[in-house]
Amino acid sequence: MQQNLRDTMALLAGTPATLNALLRDLPETWTQRSEGENTWSAFDIVGHLIHGERTDWMPRAKQILQYGESKAFEPFDRLAQERESQGKTLPQLLDEFSRVRAENLQELRALNLQERDLARRGLHPALGVVTLSQLLATWAAHDLTHLHQLSRVMAHQYREAVGPWSAFLGVLRCEGHSAP
Amino acid sequence: MQQNLRDTMALLAGTPATLNALLRDLPETWTQRSEGENTWSAFDIVGHLIHGERTDWMPRAKQILQYGESKAFEPFDRLAQERESQGKTLPQLLDEFSRVRAENLQELRALNLQERDLARRGLHPALGVVTLSQLLATWAAHDLTHLHQLSRVMAHQYREAVGPWSAFLGVLRCEGHSAP
Repeated sequence: MQQNLRDTMALLAGTPATLNALLRDLPETWTQRSEGENTWSAFDIVGHLIHGERTDWMPRAKQILQYGESKAFEPFDRLAQERESQGKTLPQLLDEFSRVRAENLQELRALNLQERDLARRGLHPALGVVTLSQLLATWAAHDLTHLHQLSRVMAHQYREAVGPWSAFLGVLRCEGHSAP
Repeated sequence: MQQNLRDTMALLAGTPATLNALLRDLPETWTQRSEGENTWSAFDIVGHLIHGERTDWMPRAKQILQYGESKAFEPFDRLAQERESQGKTLPQLLDEFSRVRAENLQELRALNLQERDLARRGLHPALGVVTLSQLLATWAAHDLTHLHQLSRVMAHQYREAVGPWSAFLGVLRCEGHSAP
């Protein structure tokens, strides 16, 4: 089952506004707390998404088109946001994500990809051969995996406050399989 | 750990805009498909949230304040949206959710709840004694459990399209523990 590029782009286009609505006006209880040591807060997650826009999705798409399978992708640095988000506020990160996402979608649109382009193959350093179609579908699913993680990290802050209702709240039973 | 009512209300106030940004402009691939038979689509989930606004959260809060533990809550109908959403479009449901949530928050604000009110107890038909504080915290966490479910239902639509990247996408390993 191939992705539909129009569906992928619609989802990618909406994520900055979704995160903005979800996070911008919230107190730090929701945005700066994590699930414990070595886990991410909402602030960290937005930083991670920005880093992906800069170094992962479009750079890899262009690499597939230019080099095919002859050159493996650079590994993705999952901790870069610790460095890059330093000294910034959450609203600044949300604005930055909005901007880089819009630039990337503009660039993607300009490529005017056809079915035969989507079938082109590249080389992932850990996963082996992948297609451009899979890369772009993963870009969208990666937004969703972090929305999934965000809802879990936020719900974790109310784990005790909900009392016996925790039995009915599926998100509190999620085991943190949302590593990027 | 008690909830902070200001944090709870900030989260509750933002959810309609979050769902609007996430869902309103998306193709039906993302909004009308579920995870399989007897599971919910995004459309179903928004209907469920509307039903909760009408019959669950504020009615139960007022019942605690009026009757305390002397009268158990009405059980919540988790399938009501099948009936109530019929013939409606997703944008209609999103507008309706926005409206009923705003009305409920206005009513909650007007109650001007104090710490001693939050400690008041009610009777849940399955869980037993619960406090008003726990009920209100659960209202917020319930939004998050359905955001968690939404991201999972949507990601499920790209389970095959992402190819080998499924190994890295936590949301695809989530086992659907998000039953309401």
